[in-house]
Amino acid sequence: MAQIIESIPNISEGRNTEVIEACIDEIRNTNGCTLLDYSSDESHNRTVITYIGDAKSVEEASVKLVKKAAELIDLTKHEGEHPRMGAVDVMPFLPIKDCTTEDCVELSKVVGSRIADEAGVPVFLYESSATRPERQNLVKIRKGQFEGMAEKVQEEIWEPDFGGRRIHPTAGVMAVGARPPLVAFNLNLDTEDVEVAKKIANIIREKDGGFKCVKSMGFEIVEEDTGKKYAQVSCNMTNYEQTPLYRVVETVKFEAARYGVHVTKTEIIGLCPMKALIDCAQYYMQTNDFDFRTQVLENHIL
Amino acid sequence: MAQIIESIPNISEGRNTEVIEACIDEIRNTNGCTLLDYSSDESHNRTVITYIGDAKSVEEASVKLVKKAAELIDLTKHEGEHPRMGAVDVMPFLPIKDCTTEDCVELSKVVGSRIADEAGVPVFLYESSATRPERQNLVKIRKGQFEGMAEKVQEEIWEPDFGGRRIHPTAGVMAVGARPPLVAFNLNLDTEDVEVAKKIANIIREKDGGFKCVKSMGFEIVEEDTGKKYAQVSCNMTNYEQTPLYRVVETVKFEAARYGVHVTKTEIIGLCPMKALIDCAQYYMQTNDFDFRTQVLENHIL
Repeated sequence: MAQIIESIPNISEGRNTEVIEACIDEIRNTNGCTLLDYSSDESHNRTVITYIGDAKSVEEASVKLVKKAAELIDLTKHEGEHPRMGAVDVMPFLPIKDCTTEDCVELSKVVGSRIADEAGVPVFLYESSATRPERQNLVKIRKGQFEGMAEKVQEEIWEPDFGGRRIHPTAGVMAVGARPPLVAFNLNLDTEDVEVAKKIANIIREKDGGFKCVKSMGFEIVEEDTGKKYAQVSCNMTNYEQTPLYRVVETVKFEAARYGVHVTKTEIIGLCPMKALIDCAQYYMQTNDFDFRTQVLENHIL
Repeated sequence: MAQIIESIPNISEGRNTEVIEACIDEIRNTNGCTLLDYSSDESHNRTVITYIGDAKSVEEASVKLVKKAAELIDLTKHEGEHPRMGAVDVMPFLPIKDCTTEDCVELSKVVGSRIADEAGVPVFLYESSATRPERQNLVKIRKGQFEGMAEKVQEEIWEPDFGGRRIHPTAGVMAVGARPPLVAFNLNLDTEDVEVAKKIANIIREKDGGFKCVKSMGFEIVEEDTGKKYAQVSCNMTNYEQTPLYRVVETVKFEAARYGVHVTKTEIIGLCPMKALIDCAQYYMQTNDFDFRTQVLENHIL
């Protein structure tokens, strides 16, 4: 496989297996696309789907998925804990191999335009594809949710990028865009004092002057089986090439040291691109001349 | 691609491009096999070829390669700095994905038997495929080289595993066997004193009581362009799951500290399986619960 683009759409159905499977069949039945994973959350009433392929097959699968979801999912009857604005709520495209974020921006525009035309669902371009700064952030686009969207799109600054100002009556609107792969990364501390985790999260996150492309919060974790408590610095690394994981590890360590606190272990949640980890190995091992592209065996196989 | 086995045979021709290309064409023309790399050394008069595929296609390619090399390469006329005993000198099989060293041992026996039958070249099974302890080590099998082999195979303990005691008149004999992927790994020190590198190499290598599956030597390196001198600990990590790279890094660091010496950088030479590096990232980042098989994105694509 030469070029690899990953898409991780969220659909607003996490309970009705028939509907979920019918949507996922659209991915399974697209040549050149590989379904990697899907996982439903009943309380969120939402399913995350992960698939990969080259630009052309991801385009096909993505448009077909939205058409099927718009046909089967009725937002006027949807309830769940997670905020949502569309039958397919959000559809990111991530560059994995032999393509750039810019290629994924291009793809998002092609797919967004086709979704508006073929499924009748208006589309906001978000993240790296955003056409206005306030549209980079999905949370801002989604504010008001499905129920408030018919009104919101009438506002000057909230005209969708494709499909005009009339929302789909049952499938709402959706966000499509390019973004780098994200790594969900937690660091556990040998203290029960959640304030330490909160202070450190505050130091490392971009929002409060920390590292670019790091989102972070401090949590108190209670282990279900043992009842053991500890504080955790929970991070979303939204661009591991901009801010590599090791930089967060080392910073959390030296900030925790002020309180006599240590990192007991770290956790990576879900999938992680190999480069995010190999970059860290190179740092710690001082393997500075290593050429990821040509020297990692698997890069010759992918 | 489900199962991936890698083969890295060395053929005894590093000068005649026509012969080299004809041999490599046998790999190129085998369905299911991918040629990753080949590189010739004129002074060694030897070419290293790297290809991958599933067991069946690697078997096909490997047998075809030996037949072609036996046809075109005449050891009675071969000269070069590197010791050799056959037209194809050595043919290792390495488990890369969804297969074990044991699967590669099986493959080596199938291929070895076919080579004896179809190319008329007697085969020694070596490394993990060895049928006697003294045959694990290629150097011991090859001792006496092509010129001494007709006599050597008459000795009680040196009957080839396949093909009997009559060597091929121009293609000699060869070694076939399974081994884990090897990582060539150097650590540069901020001293010109090669004795420090030699002492450390002595401590870490298996032969002298150090880590299992580590071969190591101390060298003095003179940079060609700058004339800068430094000592280097040069390692062959013959099984990075047995002894991971980080263990060598940390040991070299603390042993060098005795002399006030530091590691300035490390080098990985050639290809390296991603797991050798990701294992190190996990160590340094304390990502202890990370599941390489399911959590590395690329493992779902390979």
